Amino acid sequence: MITVPKLTIEDARIIMDAAVRKSREIAVPMDIAIVDEGGHLLLFQRLDGAKITSIQISIDKAFTAAGTRRPTHEYSKTAGPGGPAFGLHTSHQGRFSIVGGGVPIVVNGAVVGAVGCSSGTAEQDREVAETAIQVFTNQLPKNL
Amino acid sequence: MITVPKLTIEDARIIMDAAVRKSREIAVPMDIAIVDEGGHLLLFQRLDGAKITSIQISIDKAFTAAGTRRPTHEYSKTAGPGGPAFGLHTSHQGRFSIVGGGVPIVVNGAVVGAVGCSSGTAEQDREVAETAIQVFTNQLPKNL
Amino acid sequence: MITVPKLTIEDARIIMDAAVRKSREIAVPMDIAIVDEGGHLLLFQRLDGAKITSIQISIDKAFTAAGTRRPTHEYSKTAGPGGPAFGLHTSHQGRFSIVGGGVPIVVNGAVVGAVGCSSGTAEQDREVAETAIQVFTNQLPKNL
Amino acid sequence: MITVPKLTIEDARIIMDAAVRKSREIAVPMDIAIVDEGGHLLLFQRLDGAKITSIQISIDKAFTAAGTRRPTHEYSKTAGPGGPAFGLHTSHQGRFSIVGGGVPIVVNGAVVGAVGCSSGTAEQDREVAETAIQVFTNQLPKNL
Repeated sequence: MITVPKLTIEDARIIMDAAVRKSREIAVPMDIAIVDEGGHLLLFQRLDGAKITSIQISIDKAFTAAGTRRPTHEYSKTAGPGGPAFGLHTSHQGRFSIVGGGVPIVVNGAVVGAVGCSSGTAEQDREVAETAIQVFTNQLPKNL
Repeated sequence: MITVPKLTIEDARIIMDAAVRKSREIAVPMDIAIVDEGGHLLLFQRLDGAKITSIQISIDKAFTAAGTRRPTHEYSKTAGPGGPAFGLHTSHQGRFSIVGGGVPIVVNGAVVGAVGCSSGTAEQDREVAETAIQVFTNQLPKNL
Repeated sequence: MITVPKLTIEDARIIMDAAVRKSREIAVPMDIAIVDEGGHLLLFQRLDGAKITSIQISIDKAFTAAGTRRPTHEYSKTAGPGGPAFGLHTSHQGRFSIVGGGVPIVVNGAVVGAVGCSSGTAEQDREVAETAIQVFTNQLPKNL
Repeated sequence: MITVPKLTIEDARIIMDAAVRKSREIAVPMDIAIVDEGGHLLLFQRLDGAKITSIQISIDKAFTAAGTRRPTHEYSKTAGPGGPAFGLHTSHQGRFSIVGGGVPIVVNGAVVGAVGCSSGTAEQDREVAETAIQVFTNQLPKNL
């Protein structure tokens, strides 16, 4: 047995609030999903004007980032057409996302969950997810 | 009626142990799946640090290699973008893997099962699967 | 952030070995699955003679026991015909198991994973899972 | 490694011909599926007038009988409402059949495949499958 860090719902709320603020700042209403280290949904929010089809996409991006422990945009090339891992995107019944916007939440080197955003461009989605995670990790005590 | 060779759980354990050793040797913790000739799971192991999303991917690679009787990396080109068999990867509800790392287990010219590895690059995954199968076939009696 | 206990692959092996021993003792070859607290597969073994259809069923039982933090046999009544929760068994694409044989692994009051067994009767499957978990928790240090 | 008996396509044709004859004799046109020991389709026929929805059901019955190594009608009680294994029928994405008409093909004590029939009553479906298998095993050499 080992012990590992785990996100609480309070942690997830801090991340979600930061994601909502960033989404509004860039004026792109988004679907925002936060999952735990097992890829299971912790918190979700669809802002007014965000896309209905992006509900599942944001959840899938977070699922993929938590499960692979890598941001989904890193798979855009390696698992895109011509890449050595092309084909991965149909696994997990098509839930394996290779579109930017899924970002793992890393605390002291351990992946404790992930954020997935969708409705904007892949770059905008990624920006919102990264900013939200940055806000969260910045406010953690140094000696965690 | 004909008779065909069949893997036992003891055979599968020899292959699994060799795969675990190789995975550790190259320092890439992996998900490792061994299936029978029908593509059905016999043995599975997720080493500490291997990816959660690679559970299904390793099983799918083994399923594909057993079913097609070919290593999955051979499909990367023929079933990749621009290849004559493009589109295969979405069959079987997205389980047809065209990413390297699924390798059939061949004994006396007959496919008796397959190994699927995932968590590393396609090359690393393939290397672990091939090494494990080699260790197994090397220890079989010559006059089997 | 909080910290939680987590099964390692070494822990899972102790549980698996005990399950295999019990399966052999009662002479019912089984499919045995061990999942982590998130319901994701850690270790799987199909003993010679165990049922092919029980591969998925054993994994589903473990998934359900980890996810609900209750043994699956407790759902046989509440979610069976006439029970107040009837209908649950079709959720998760039919993976929510209400058949005995899925048992959560509890350490110091926390569910850290689950064992799922299949191929025997629901009682036999449950017996193997419970025995394996008992062997594991018995050998843990008292002051964990 | 062990060796096991395996159905050939010639064997399957003998079984299919006998099933077609019995289906005509009782004047119930049927969907008839024959699978190998891994539950994979070997031969299929939909007689004129057989039901379209019974295509998948006959395949699922054969899949279940091969995978469990038991006729599907045995599950009607144990996995039916009030039975100790109720809930099994939703596993494998609902493909686990507990309706009579799926029968394993047993040769010298080993299950080498299964027949699944559908379109009639569960009793009629079972009768056609059982008769076809009987015809096949009767013509096998004694000293096989």
